[in-house]
Amino acid sequence: MLKYRRILFLGREKNIQPLPDLLNTLLAIQQRGGEAILDQSIINIVDEKTAADFARHKIPVLEKTAEADVDLVVVLGGDGTFLGAARRYAPRHATLIGINLGYLGFLTDISLDNMQQSLLEVLDGDCRNEQRFMLSTTFNGNLLNADLSVAINDVVISRGSAGTLLKLRVYIGETLAYELRADGLILSTPSGSTAYALSAGGPIVAPDLDAILLVPLCPHALTYRPLMVRADYTVRIEVVQAESARAHIDGQGDYLLKSGDSIEVCRHEAPLSICHPTNYDYYQTLRKKLLWGG
Amino acid sequence: MLKYRRILFLGREKNIQPLPDLLNTLLAIQQRGGEAILDQSIINIVDEKTAADFARHKIPVLEKTAEADVDLVVVLGGDGTFLGAARRYAPRHATLIGINLGYLGFLTDISLDNMQQSLLEVLDGDCRNEQRFMLSTTFNGNLLNADLSVAINDVVISRGSAGTLLKLRVYIGETLAYELRADGLILSTPSGSTAYALSAGGPIVAPDLDAILLVPLCPHALTYRPLMVRADYTVRIEVVQAESARAHIDGQGDYLLKSGDSIEVCRHEAPLSICHPTNYDYYQTLRKKLLWGG
Amino acid sequence: MLKYRRILFLGREKNIQPLPDLLNTLLAIQQRGGEAILDQSIINIVDEKTAADFARHKIPVLEKTAEADVDLVVVLGGDGTFLGAARRYAPRHATLIGINLGYLGFLTDISLDNMQQSLLEVLDGDCRNEQRFMLSTTFNGNLLNADLSVAINDVVISRGSAGTLLKLRVYIGETLAYELRADGLILSTPSGSTAYALSAGGPIVAPDLDAILLVPLCPHALTYRPLMVRADYTVRIEVVQAESARAHIDGQGDYLLKSGDSIEVCRHEAPLSICHPTNYDYYQTLRKKLLWGG
Amino acid sequence: MLKYRRILFLGREKNIQPLPDLLNTLLAIQQRGGEAILDQSIINIVDEKTAADFARHKIPVLEKTAEADVDLVVVLGGDGTFLGAARRYAPRHATLIGINLGYLGFLTDISLDNMQQSLLEVLDGDCRNEQRFMLSTTFNGNLLNADLSVAINDVVISRGSAGTLLKLRVYIGETLAYELRADGLILSTPSGSTAYALSAGGPIVAPDLDAILLVPLCPHALTYRPLMVRADYTVRIEVVQAESARAHIDGQGDYLLKSGDSIEVCRHEAPLSICHPTNYDYYQTLRKKLLWGG
Repeated sequence: MLKYRRILFLGREKNIQPLPDLLNTLLAIQQRGGEAILDQSIINIVDEKTAADFARHKIPVLEKTAEADVDLVVVLGGDGTFLGAARRYAPRHATLIGINLGYLGFLTDISLDNMQQSLLEVLDGDCRNEQRFMLSTTFNGNLLNADLSVAINDVVISRGSAGTLLKLRVYIGETLAYELRADGLILSTPSGSTAYALSAGGPIVAPDLDAILLVPLCPHALTYRPLMVRADYTVRIEVVQAESARAHIDGQGDYLLKSGDSIEVCRHEAPLSICHPTNYDYYQTLRKKLLWGG
Repeated sequence: MLKYRRILFLGREKNIQPLPDLLNTLLAIQQRGGEAILDQSIINIVDEKTAADFARHKIPVLEKTAEADVDLVVVLGGDGTFLGAARRYAPRHATLIGINLGYLGFLTDISLDNMQQSLLEVLDGDCRNEQRFMLSTTFNGNLLNADLSVAINDVVISRGSAGTLLKLRVYIGETLAYELRADGLILSTPSGSTAYALSAGGPIVAPDLDAILLVPLCPHALTYRPLMVRADYTVRIEVVQAESARAHIDGQGDYLLKSGDSIEVCRHEAPLSICHPTNYDYYQTLRKKLLWGG
Repeated sequence: MLKYRRILFLGREKNIQPLPDLLNTLLAIQQRGGEAILDQSIINIVDEKTAADFARHKIPVLEKTAEADVDLVVVLGGDGTFLGAARRYAPRHATLIGINLGYLGFLTDISLDNMQQSLLEVLDGDCRNEQRFMLSTTFNGNLLNADLSVAINDVVISRGSAGTLLKLRVYIGETLAYELRADGLILSTPSGSTAYALSAGGPIVAPDLDAILLVPLCPHALTYRPLMVRADYTVRIEVVQAESARAHIDGQGDYLLKSGDSIEVCRHEAPLSICHPTNYDYYQTLRKKLLWGG
Repeated sequence: MLKYRRILFLGREKNIQPLPDLLNTLLAIQQRGGEAILDQSIINIVDEKTAADFARHKIPVLEKTAEADVDLVVVLGGDGTFLGAARRYAPRHATLIGINLGYLGFLTDISLDNMQQSLLEVLDGDCRNEQRFMLSTTFNGNLLNADLSVAINDVVISRGSAGTLLKLRVYIGETLAYELRADGLILSTPSGSTAYALSAGGPIVAPDLDAILLVPLCPHALTYRPLMVRADYTVRIEVVQAESARAHIDGQGDYLLKSGDSIEVCRHEAPLSICHPTNYDYYQTLRKKLLWGG
């Protein structure tokens, strides 16, 4: 019995190398009884011959922007591509696996060379499954579109252009934590702690810690510091004063905020389920990416 | 039925105000069926007349350095006094309550003026009970004396004098997290996140988050950052290179470390149980102490 | 002989208290042989009666947006009002003096209560004169309008909206210092070191140090740090990659930047000349504003 | 005419590679009319055959710990060796040149392979001469021994062991800047800004900026920041409270401080004169050492 039967392949948006082994991988999956499906993005990044090969072997291709009901999503690209795929498929309870096309990522940790072998092992359940959490966001009590409701890394509130004031009130559950005058505020998952929050001075949070990280951006007073709270709290941000402030989720979307608006962030009901190679080691990736010990 | 029957009063080491209401409080406790006991430290900080009153009413006084088997420890003093008391009595599963003698502390949040009323309410169970965790430390596999085994705030490894090298290897569970050349490393509980770890650039960690915070002190490379891990991991520090390095626990003790030594830190089996006033609000204390919004 | 003969009074933009003593101060200046002139902004912030008194005494009032040729500019307001006034009058070699209307500022350090006496002393040269430097900025080799050419505090380049890339190349004189991927970059004078640059993690720079401070905003790599260089260098920023990046000067203006643009910042030929009370003490202001020792 | 006639060669303390080209370099210098002298440290780090060659050619060797009256000091080693050499010879107005034996240093920027050619060019004045400043330190008004009077990088005051208090009062010239409770305070030159001060969170200061950098170590309050002042001020530190505090200079020495002690730091009367290769580029070294743009 296969652990994952319906498998979607998804790529990044811009052109990359020809991926000669991809067809063989797809056929091998079919041979094992799996069903391999291609996202349009894969067609965009392979050369014409490879695309023709796919067609000849009748590998199904999704319509543009369509989403499939799949068990496993294989992401070919960097962490950015993985983020986008995870935001679409993790809420549908698909598991994700990241194949990097050059540079080791925090989320894309299988090298292209090992793709076929790794994936066949994964089909048999021979992989290290990790459960992280995602954030679900509502604006004034409503879920907006998909682009602004699920965050793998972070929800960022920022003041917009220079000279404009941003004043926020931050509640942890029902309790006022603090008022803040700042350029903005990052609400981050552990996954996001090595992304934007790190640039803004936040700590690194191990991915299995169920905690939300709040990192202020250029706070006006010098005594504000990053804050960590349990992920089972809802964090609510009241926009006390804003001129051209906005919210972004995983660096996407652009939701305009005005005084009186309210943003609620809590743990998403669906987990982010990631397949890693069996020798996966978070700290090793960390050391490599941050050049620790170099 | 009283929630706490045997109640120890404990004070700081240096002289303070006369505490005229203390005797009344003790008598009121006895009247309610409780048993009030005084630590030697209380005798040291009251005037002769008050001490004579205690003797006349036959309030039992502990021998110097003796420890009592009690249900509740009432700490009269600041956070420093509370730390010392908690390190002695929390491992014996006593609950602690902090009466501040002047300044609001993170741990001593009942004012002297409200002492009697607050304590009588507490006896009836009318208080907000908070469970934090403490750290248990072993050196090369052994628990040392009490002063170097329980930490409420932090275990600190530091290099000793200037010019000497300190190189550590940090393991989270069985996994190497990183090697570090630095002035030192702080392993902190959430309680400790507002103490030394904050001075060293660490985040603030809400007290109900079960996480251990690792903050490097002046790391040689610029890419090291504070790290948060689940409190159910054992954090092990190997001393790779040291000349006059030492370990301190809650700022106490002075354990000399040498190359090859190993320190293991994990969650203590006993919780740190603290009684707060019913209107206790951690974030309000935080705002007052850090002058947020000032 | 008066040290300053033509004296302009200038206020902030929004309504404030009635300023009953202002007329007396103006008349006292006239009596001493000085010439007192009012900026339109003063008329906006006094009540009708006071405005009528000014008219009755024929105190000259500038046309809106007109600029006078004066020796001394008296700023009634906070640091923000002072910045605006300094950017207009310091390049014309006028000296500035700041009267705060409530809160001590870094630049507005005379209290309203002492206005008349302080100003009369200043006319006789009895004040502490401080010379700071300002920054002059060109975009692609051109001075733009006044709002984007003189900076008292800082020139800030920022990436605009989230998710967009900003890549800069920084030259100190003719030498490449570094390439930077970040949310932005602050180029600050010592005056600006206690403003936005401080929020962004920069050091405090004593106002008599002729140095330009470069502070990156959320740099992508963890090894970037604030950099201090001599103020007799021209600092040139090449915009390598930008989507909606922009430049702001003292939090004003909004100059859109595109890839290939170049910004040059150097010490302005005119000094920023400020009159302080004779007991002026920069560090005392610093301690009060930052609550040092509190 | 040679720019430098008497030239001392000085090495690090521990054994290194055989340095086969050194003899040729020494002979070439003699041929050009220069006088090459060896510090004992050179004899310690070359093999017996090379040492014998030196003796055969009658290259003069200094007695151990003796200091020579020379024009140029050639340092074979890393930045640490350079620091030691500079502290001994810069106060005697000798120029220094650093040959690195492996890793590029901030101060030792000529590679061993280019030693002979570089040195011959230097003799003719064909090099880039840089003047930095050093710090001169007095304790309670007295210069102590050489080890505690000249600092190339920094003067560091630290509290000693954990749990002990350190309270300092910092004066810039005659003016109180601030009181500080902290683990310590670093007073750094621009050279030192890339050393210990950088680990402690300080900015990078270009070497030609005449400024002293003050960086607090783990200050108790969150509003303390690094401070930059003109190098023509004397910075005076009063030790208000200390238990086992001490001062170190360039990581050397170990001067015990007690409450009431006073330390004065000012620019040394002698410059630190360094010869660099003609293509020397401070920022390139910075980028390489900090992995900027990597």
